[in-house]
Amino acid sequence: MKEILSKDNKLIKYISKLQTSAKFRREEGCFIAEGLRVCVEAALSNAKVLSVLVTDNALQRHSEELKPLLDCAEEVYLTSEKAMSAACDTKSPQGVICVIKTLDNIIDLDTINNKYILLENVQDPSNLGTILRTADALGINGVIMTSDCCDVYSPKVCRGAMGALYRVPFMIIDNAPSFIKEFNLKGKSFAAVVKDAYSVTDADFSSNVLVAVGNEGNGLTKETIEACTSKITIKMCNNAESLNASIAASILMWEMIK
Amino acid sequence: MKEILSKDNKLIKYISKLQTSAKFRREEGCFIAEGLRVCVEAALSNAKVLSVLVTDNALQRHSEELKPLLDCAEEVYLTSEKAMSAACDTKSPQGVICVIKTLDNIIDLDTINNKYILLENVQDPSNLGTILRTADALGINGVIMTSDCCDVYSPKVCRGAMGALYRVPFMIIDNAPSFIKEFNLKGKSFAAVVKDAYSVTDADFSSNVLVAVGNEGNGLTKETIEACTSKITIKMCNNAESLNASIAASILMWEMIK
Repeated sequence: MKEILSKDNKLIKYISKLQTSAKFRREEGCFIAEGLRVCVEAALSNAKVLSVLVTDNALQRHSEELKPLLDCAEEVYLTSEKAMSAACDTKSPQGVICVIKTLDNIIDLDTINNKYILLENVQDPSNLGTILRTADALGINGVIMTSDCCDVYSPKVCRGAMGALYRVPFMIIDNAPSFIKEFNLKGKSFAAVVKDAYSVTDADFSSNVLVAVGNEGNGLTKETIEACTSKITIKMCNNAESLNASIAASILMWEMIK
Repeated sequence: MKEILSKDNKLIKYISKLQTSAKFRREEGCFIAEGLRVCVEAALSNAKVLSVLVTDNALQRHSEELKPLLDCAEEVYLTSEKAMSAACDTKSPQGVICVIKTLDNIIDLDTINNKYILLENVQDPSNLGTILRTADALGINGVIMTSDCCDVYSPKVCRGAMGALYRVPFMIIDNAPSFIKEFNLKGKSFAAVVKDAYSVTDADFSSNVLVAVGNEGNGLTKETIEACTSKITIKMCNNAESLNASIAASILMWEMIK
């Protein structure tokens, strides 16, 4: 096994740049997974793992769990604790990090009776990670994100998604209204809004369905709401103005698949 | 209006300590709200506001919104930006912070047809804040927390709850199993588990109902599961092992109140 001892190693610097720059991730066509579970899930989900860096400590403690990851990776480096810290985004790294080729979980829109969620300008990576994790757990057929959402390959999204990133089909689109108008030819689209709409419990989610959820502070744009077949809302009490975006999206996905 | 210019001011140091120490919050019987909205909500929800600190900048920009807060507070201090930064937990403070007496949102367990959620050993303050916010929005009648949950008055919980903390009735208990056994005399209790249980969609949530949700990593303790009348689960697909605790709790609350 090759070794990386210094935090000034070229690969460590390359990984740090991939951690912090969405632009660099796009240019290179790869992203970083960090932590035992998220890394091993990549291997189990047949993601293309380019490099694995592992500390001696992690190797000793998790040799059995790490096996599929080390087997599938193109290259493996035994890495010093200091170099690992320099590469990692978290404060207490678990001693495993890998470089993965960006994914190809293509959404097949030409099927029937599928359930999709569309996210417009969702900014918080924790929200996006949680939504992907929930979409995966509930069996949503695809997550469609506008290009002004936070980067799906950012370290926080990756960690929050807990491996769902490798499994859930997703796509990035430029323009939500025009995508939705095209979708309406083969299904129904619902705009999630906070008021003046039918309760989600009254919506008919049979057949092909897309639900659009908007930005944390401002919700969906007017154009996207107008492009949808109908508007739905999660009825709230008290003075609550809104739910957290990941909670709202999760309740909507739950209603879609139930 | 009295002024605070120095970050070494006694009240600033007092606030910093309240921000960081749960023990000190308990001893003093007060906690900190930070940010325009969370502070103003305290006034609107009739929480007892002891001190308000506000920067000149915030006062100029939000004079109208701040009025109810400044009117109800026992004392108001015009505070320098430097002193405000020292008092605040966030990196970009909005220029408003207050000291509030711990709340008295008592749960009335002697009613009928109420819906409660019980949280056992929930550790992440973002999860707890989000659960409180959702409970408030959905009209849950009370949130019961075991004393090993993270502190409900911690700065992150407060911010995540977005004012729900002042409105949603809650209580802290020492022992979940014995609380649940007593609750069973007047209602039904459900333990949320990840497998070997009925689907939540098959549960009968009419009458008095309590749903128990456990720790992020380990779920509910065996004793708490056994104390409940029945077990329920959110059916998942794929290889997903679990949902985020706040998502699971939110879907369960949604099913309870629908």
